[in-house]
Amino acid sequence: VRRLERDDEDKGFLSLLSQLTTVGNVTSEQFASRLLDVRNGPEFVYVVEDGGAIVAAGTLVLERKFARGCGLCGHIEDVVVDERARGKGLGLVIVRALTRVAESVGCYKVILDCSEDNQAFYERCGMRRKEVQMALYF
Amino acid sequence: VRRLERDDEDKGFLSLLSQLTTVGNVTSEQFASRLLDVRNGPEFVYVVEDGGAIVAAGTLVLERKFARGCGLCGHIEDVVVDERARGKGLGLVIVRALTRVAESVGCYKVILDCSEDNQAFYERCGMRRKEVQMALYF
Repeated sequence: VRRLERDDEDKGFLSLLSQLTTVGNVTSEQFASRLLDVRNGPEFVYVVEDGGAIVAAGTLVLERKFARGCGLCGHIEDVVVDERARGKGLGLVIVRALTRVAESVGCYKVILDCSEDNQAFYERCGMRRKEVQMALYF
Repeated sequence: VRRLERDDEDKGFLSLLSQLTTVGNVTSEQFASRLLDVRNGPEFVYVVEDGGAIVAAGTLVLERKFARGCGLCGHIEDVVVDERARGKGLGLVIVRALTRVAESVGCYKVILDCSEDNQAFYERCGMRRKEVQMALYF
């Protein structure tokens, strides 16, 4: 498990992400530019590579708060495991890596939103259900 | 409704926040430093001032994604209205301001986590319940 790199575009990072959500057209220029944006945080994108292909990915976003003594909150986003690589524990590998990063940079908590179907998986990652997510699409 | 400013520390911003969550000790130096950090995003803290006191506040955090054509997701955090100023619609004022900012900078959606008790309020803000929030405290 390692940080996202420039040539992960060719290793299928975006097509993996499209198994989770709408990706749309992302040019090489857009990929490179966004990677530069997020490379030093507050976003941290981690991936697992297997046989030259990206098979799992997840993102940690840091939120700098005034609460909790100007503390940091970690948000885990866009966790996805390739459908051909499921059942090997790669989701747990990604979530643990992101959680370790969050703790090591000083977050007081890490949170995420998931479907009811995925709640049991995140409980196995040591998390507990807390609130409900509300959303507004533009 | 306006952006958080330096002298809002003296106008009770932190004590307002303590009505929502644990704030702990935040020195003037920490306040000033964190304000500089967040002043140009990806966090945007908005407040409502009334009679020289901060009576409502909320934060928008921008998350830069690769999904949605390298889109932006807005996270609304730490919405709080002073207990002596509730029932005047200030919560709606703050949420609408943060939602407008999110839309104007190009977010494709805005999301937040809230208690079941506050779900009806956010539905009046035009939001819909979507997923469940999981949390891990360090």
